[in-house]
Amino acid sequence: MRRRSWWGWGWEDQALTSEQKQSLAGAVGARLGLSDIEVQSPPDLDAAVLPPPRFEPPAALARLCSTEPFDRASHTYGKSFRDVVRGFNGDLSPAPSFVAYPESEADVVALLDWCASAGAPAVPYGGGSSVVGGTELAGGVCIDMTRMDRVVEIDRASRAARIQGGALGPVLEEQLRPEGYTLRHYPQSFEFSTLGGWLATRSGGHYATNYTHIDDFCESMRVVTPAGLVESRRLPGSGAGPSPDRLFLGSEGTLGIITEAWMRVQERPVHKSSAGVRFETFDAGVAAVRALSQAALFSANCRLLDPGEAMTAAGVADGSALLVLGFESADHPVDAWMARAVELVQDHGGTLPEGVRTSSGEGAAGAWKGSFLRAPYTRDALVAMDVIVETFETAITWDRFGALHASVTDTVDKALAEVCGGGWITCRFTHVYPDGPAPYFSVVAPGRRGSLVQMWDEVKQAASEALLAAGGTITHHHAVGRDHRPWYERQRPDLFADALRAAKSTLDPSGVLNPGVLFAS
Amino acid sequence: MRRRSWWGWGWEDQALTSEQKQSLAGAVGARLGLSDIEVQSPPDLDAAVLPPPRFEPPAALARLCSTEPFDRASHTYGKSFRDVVRGFNGDLSPAPSFVAYPESEADVVALLDWCASAGAPAVPYGGGSSVVGGTELAGGVCIDMTRMDRVVEIDRASRAARIQGGALGPVLEEQLRPEGYTLRHYPQSFEFSTLGGWLATRSGGHYATNYTHIDDFCESMRVVTPAGLVESRRLPGSGAGPSPDRLFLGSEGTLGIITEAWMRVQERPVHKSSAGVRFETFDAGVAAVRALSQAALFSANCRLLDPGEAMTAAGVADGSALLVLGFESADHPVDAWMARAVELVQDHGGTLPEGVRTSSGEGAAGAWKGSFLRAPYTRDALVAMDVIVETFETAITWDRFGALHASVTDTVDKALAEVCGGGWITCRFTHVYPDGPAPYFSVVAPGRRGSLVQMWDEVKQAASEALLAAGGTITHHHAVGRDHRPWYERQRPDLFADALRAAKSTLDPSGVLNPGVLFAS
Repeated sequence: MRRRSWWGWGWEDQALTSEQKQSLAGAVGARLGLSDIEVQSPPDLDAAVLPPPRFEPPAALARLCSTEPFDRASHTYGKSFRDVVRGFNGDLSPAPSFVAYPESEADVVALLDWCASAGAPAVPYGGGSSVVGGTELAGGVCIDMTRMDRVVEIDRASRAARIQGGALGPVLEEQLRPEGYTLRHYPQSFEFSTLGGWLATRSGGHYATNYTHIDDFCESMRVVTPAGLVESRRLPGSGAGPSPDRLFLGSEGTLGIITEAWMRVQERPVHKSSAGVRFETFDAGVAAVRALSQAALFSANCRLLDPGEAMTAAGVADGSALLVLGFESADHPVDAWMARAVELVQDHGGTLPEGVRTSSGEGAAGAWKGSFLRAPYTRDALVAMDVIVETFETAITWDRFGALHASVTDTVDKALAEVCGGGWITCRFTHVYPDGPAPYFSVVAPGRRGSLVQMWDEVKQAASEALLAAGGTITHHHAVGRDHRPWYERQRPDLFADALRAAKSTLDPSGVLNPGVLFAS
Repeated sequence: MRRRSWWGWGWEDQALTSEQKQSLAGAVGARLGLSDIEVQSPPDLDAAVLPPPRFEPPAALARLCSTEPFDRASHTYGKSFRDVVRGFNGDLSPAPSFVAYPESEADVVALLDWCASAGAPAVPYGGGSSVVGGTELAGGVCIDMTRMDRVVEIDRASRAARIQGGALGPVLEEQLRPEGYTLRHYPQSFEFSTLGGWLATRSGGHYATNYTHIDDFCESMRVVTPAGLVESRRLPGSGAGPSPDRLFLGSEGTLGIITEAWMRVQERPVHKSSAGVRFETFDAGVAAVRALSQAALFSANCRLLDPGEAMTAAGVADGSALLVLGFESADHPVDAWMARAVELVQDHGGTLPEGVRTSSGEGAAGAWKGSFLRAPYTRDALVAMDVIVETFETAITWDRFGALHASVTDTVDKALAEVCGGGWITCRFTHVYPDGPAPYFSVVAPGRRGSLVQMWDEVKQAASEALLAAGGTITHHHAVGRDHRPWYERQRPDLFADALRAAKSTLDPSGVLNPGVLFAS
């Protein structure tokens, strides 16, 4: 049976081959100026030491629970760089006591009841793709939701589907496809993250403009809290008081476990138009994207890569910035939309060396999507080479983007020089809004074996301080978890935190849900 | 000086003339089968009795406060039918003790501090256009925000403006216009409601599709709560925990007073295309609008009137339903958008007797907008004729719209027959979403002098029960206030109410803010 990696990304059999690793080592070594990169072998689970559990599964729920080493090990961490390094080193000290796999809402209720009575901290777990320490809690009870993965009901008139929270991206898309629908929500973690996880962390999706956060596709939800069930009414829109759903969107497993949601689905797009637009400078690209974002054309794709990203991700070797621009529709050809977008980017100095590609039917974006989804496997291979490789992201209004970009780049450059003796940082926009972009930074640097986590933590600390000082958010779509909490606590209004804490005390009176996430435990 | 009506809608000098009233009496009499409609004279403030105040303005704040009869009388009610009837009858029993007009955030803080120390209930008041009893509290302290009405700052790069909460629609638009911008948020109350009121009640705006609730245009806000100031960070998007802004959007003055917000503004549209599309039946129009809403064309206007509304509002005499369809853009001609929309509506049996009208520049929608904004003055005239005239609204997914419409229409027809001996109900869509419409119902019926409020309350009760039973929301954009609370309490999840109450206890520990709204006092 195909098996997930217990320490790294995705499927074990999808990891880079030895040949691919050697080729990668050569390329990265050349870029970082390292001559002798050693590629270490993946860790051996049998050699890793699991800590004794703090809690044993209760007899009444034993059928749902596993204390198997593979289950405990593979649920120990999320998938950030620091997670993968620790897993790769065989450090399993924060392993959960056991992993529970509920099969029904009643199971979730029973599990939370038991956790509350036993004082056992419960960690809701979807696909385990958190990059912010959202699921890491030593000795906790990990509640893995992936057995609750059904599309339960489809309302064709309203184009909505009732989907269980534990459905992984491909699992829910497989069930929607025969019906002619798609949720069309493709975070990079698509294959290894769940609907419930997306909702709990306000995941950012496929669309680069207009509705993109999962928040906007959620019609209603069912949430099991330790205090009882919360179910919101299915409504296309409402003005009746503060939105109940918005309390749980972004709650990161601290208020309840999302067992089901009615989601707005879509027909599969058949009309597509795409173009690669080059700009002499990143700044010129930024100005063009700003104009696009304010023209209400609602491009599906609008991803601007700085020259460094354009080179590594798309092979653009002439120092240009690259805008990946795309329109799509299930209803109508999008030529007029693309034509106006091309005018706008050309007004800002953009050129289209390969013109506009129009297609009907699916598959056009397949290649890009494939490489996008494979990137984390490459990251794992770099970890085996003691290379530091990580990303962080934010959002900022247009007026302050230039200063934020300069300050973050400068700060991280200096930190890399000091901590790592070199390395590089690049930037892209993953999403854009009329009032600002969501910049996404990638860092690659040489690391020292045994110190990778500490080295990255130092760089990340500097980057986070720079982000916050420049007015950004500590996260646009990676969530807060445990890792971002110090900056989140300074970003969010103090009285809002007090109000949210009061809400949590109501819904989770014994404080068993994901302690340490969003709030100090 | 031009003066607001103390008992009815808008400006005193904009009320219908005697001639207009007589003509209206004739038309309504014919429609309702009443031969001898008497048009009563407007009430006289000098003859109305104001109750003794429960609280006196404190000396330190006396400069901000008024106990003038006109101020107390004109701040007694909102502008629902039951409000106007009671004002028209000179019933001022729920008048506030006094009206305070803060001029700065410090004034708001001082007022709330005093209210908390004196145990005086504070009622945040914008333009006073609530139709749900949102500002009615006998003996309370009415905090009228309209002196805080400045556009404080404009960020041209991000197209955003920092605007004080007390700015009425025309006041903020006047300040944005010289800069080339518009908020383009036009609820029917546009002239007599404020930004802070829109945010606090999740107002529904101009756009019929895509972003339309004021929620979507809010980048950040400053809120004075009794516990202190809450200010959220300006961000185009964020995934850092539950949104702080969403706690206050829809809070209806129960958690704090919104003193400022950064709002996403827009360039003024110059390309417009509009069409009146007729359908033989309302159902055919509904099917066409559903297709439009799911095509991602994002029409600015998409208002479907049933045959009754089409006749009274647009003079369509052949029994057709009418779709008012429009596209607009500040950036590009919208012909391709309209062309596809026309194909779609024609596929569903729509016809365009007057074709498509394309225009550049503003003013095209002026006539419709004028009559839309004048409707409440007509309502006031009907009150003087003992005619019951009111609206209510909801939102519902497409799959359940047919049943909701049938049930509500049938229920209200029966209630009107029983309570009023006749009358009619009509329906339009004010907003549409991919997963459902926001139906807006209008009722006109003969009333008996002295019993108008009780008669309408009976009909409204039946209508609200039918809405809730059919799965709708008690309000899509009119808010909850005091009038909708019984149904709101059944609609929202109980545990969410507990969580919200806990948040309120944190922000408003002595419970002085708008007691009776959203929560039982």
